Amino acid sequence: MKINNKSYKTIWFDHKSACVKIIDQTKLPHSLDIVDLKNLDDIIKAIKIMQVRGAPLIGGAAAFGIVMAMKSNPSNQNLRDASKDLISARPTAVNLRSAVRAMNEKLKDLDDDDRYEAAIVAAEDLCKKDEDCCRQIGIYGKKIISDYIEKNDTDKINILTHCNAGWLATIDWGTATSPIYHAAKDGIKIHVWVDETRPRNQGASLTSYELTNEGIANTIIADNTGGLLMSQGDVDICITGTDRVLSNGDVINKIGTYLKALAAHDNDIPFYVALPGTTIDKENDKVTDNMIEYRTADELTHIEGIDDNQKLKKVRIYPEKCNTINPAFDITPGRLVTALITEKGIFKSTKEGLLEYHSSNS
Amino acid sequence: MKINNKSYKTIWFDHKSACVKIIDQTKLPHSLDIVDLKNLDDIIKAIKIMQVRGAPLIGGAAAFGIVMAMKSNPSNQNLRDASKDLISARPTAVNLRSAVRAMNEKLKDLDDDDRYEAAIVAAEDLCKKDEDCCRQIGIYGKKIISDYIEKNDTDKINILTHCNAGWLATIDWGTATSPIYHAAKDGIKIHVWVDETRPRNQGASLTSYELTNEGIANTIIADNTGGLLMSQGDVDICITGTDRVLSNGDVINKIGTYLKALAAHDNDIPFYVALPGTTIDKENDKVTDNMIEYRTADELTHIEGIDDNQKLKKVRIYPEKCNTINPAFDITPGRLVTALITEKGIFKSTKEGLLEYHSSNS
Repeated sequence: MKINNKSYKTIWFDHKSACVKIIDQTKLPHSLDIVDLKNLDDIIKAIKIMQVRGAPLIGGAAAFGIVMAMKSNPSNQNLRDASKDLISARPTAVNLRSAVRAMNEKLKDLDDDDRYEAAIVAAEDLCKKDEDCCRQIGIYGKKIISDYIEKNDTDKINILTHCNAGWLATIDWGTATSPIYHAAKDGIKIHVWVDETRPRNQGASLTSYELTNEGIANTIIADNTGGLLMSQGDVDICITGTDRVLSNGDVINKIGTYLKALAAHDNDIPFYVALPGTTIDKENDKVTDNMIEYRTADELTHIEGIDDNQKLKKVRIYPEKCNTINPAFDITPGRLVTALITEKGIFKSTKEGLLEYHSSNS
Repeated sequence: MKINNKSYKTIWFDHKSACVKIIDQTKLPHSLDIVDLKNLDDIIKAIKIMQVRGAPLIGGAAAFGIVMAMKSNPSNQNLRDASKDLISARPTAVNLRSAVRAMNEKLKDLDDDDRYEAAIVAAEDLCKKDEDCCRQIGIYGKKIISDYIEKNDTDKINILTHCNAGWLATIDWGTATSPIYHAAKDGIKIHVWVDETRPRNQGASLTSYELTNEGIANTIIADNTGGLLMSQGDVDICITGTDRVLSNGDVINKIGTYLKALAAHDNDIPFYVALPGTTIDKENDKVTDNMIEYRTADELTHIEGIDDNQKLKKVRIYPEKCNTINPAFDITPGRLVTALITEKGIFKSTKEGLLEYHSSNS
């Protein structure tokens, strides 16, 4: 998608310099920095400090992490070590694990000498597949939007989203935003309520930024505001992404998603979750301890912004002496989710719905 | 209550200098500034820019606004003008209107020459009554806490609160915090989850600050976090304040309160609202347009904090080009409120409960 009218993807392999290039998402919206990741450590760091974030993009970055590992040392031992280090970089995104597994599957039977080149092809292919998934999510999701328009005999729709499940969270198109971009291309007038999404403000810094760059009308709101808007009839549907859908249909997503799902339910507003199949956790129907990542306190206590001299400045906003905790995700029970929008179509967020997804070929 | 081990109230009349003194709450937690308000304009400005805030304290400040008006010109015309200007300073807090009305009642039949002195007595009396109310709220609310402790055979309790309904929002004691302070004095171990309360962060800047100064264990969390904590069993009860309780029991309070009430309801956690009777709106059972205050965008787009040089600095945290809206309150339906904790005891948050409150003498 576009930034300043130029097309970008969030991650790509630069064959000339043999390094991975990313948009540094910790610098947005104040600065657009393209960063070179030259080795596995760079990639693990980029995932940990969230220069790349969003479940699908973390998967893509992990695949390129294996590429970088194979570049420096294509041995079985190094493939195992790199895989382990990548999987532990962030605990919640199931895509990270599934990308690493897919890469291992492609490489395990190859000679060491062939692994680096094969890894590049496999990582690029994985990213291409994610793009295709996101495009398909957009096509299926667009139908939900156009059905709303038709059913309510209106020419515009207000959509609320939380965090960033936009193209910046994927390789391109996004998950929650892909239906929006596709519907807008069909001429439907869309306005998006963007939760700022404390503590890291991915809504304000990323979602609003990318929507504005794509010409989609949007308004940033405090995370506290969605309930009022829903009770006033100012929200027609909600669409979020997810970092992991459990096999019972419960949705792990950015902290605060559960509260919006409750408000949507209380006001009879449809609440959709958009995801590629790689985000489904087939193995777990319960939240285990390590699934909810706890991040550092400074994400709450300090914040970065532009000062009067147009310089980026970090300030402490909390009292000097205070305690905080910073869980990054919460769990929205499947009962609060109207449906999942996937690359294979629309499915119920239940055990049965997910089984149907898995057995579907479309 | 105490700041740095010294006792304060939030507002008082300094008889020597004949001016009103307040703690400037826009400067907390980074700096404790006592400010002189020398005339009506100073008081209106202090209410508007939230140097004083919190429904009960706004009422107290408005009473002193009438004092300052009578000091400069005790005519009927000026009493009317000052009353009108004060009431329009902030639209949501019903205490503002009720304080101005009470002051008018006291002054209307007096000679001009007697009005200033009588206004001082009346304003101090109104503040004293608010203090007494808050103390009583604490005594009734403490019973809820001690009952929980007894029923669950535990020695500690986790309470979640939103925004600041602490002593800084009143004259002393607070509304939501008064039960906490009273229970703590009885030796009950309390830990408070403090919602930071974007966009103005009154939770982080005021509630955590005042609890820490009173030695109450507390943890600041992003507004998004309470849902996860409730679903994990980490919250035993919720207590918030309110800016206006409608006559049908619906509660207007700081934006985001509704979302926490929904989460409490979804997890069978009691959700209490603490208030003095002055916060009850006897006349309205519906939200009208002017009841939900919309504040300026810069409260969202910019934030103030302490930089590396220990200087207070304001930074822009949103993209340069963006839209925002900033409604300051939302409506929690009475059906989500377990009970109201008032100075007359515990009442249901329904039409009947409020009628019972009004007919109660205790």
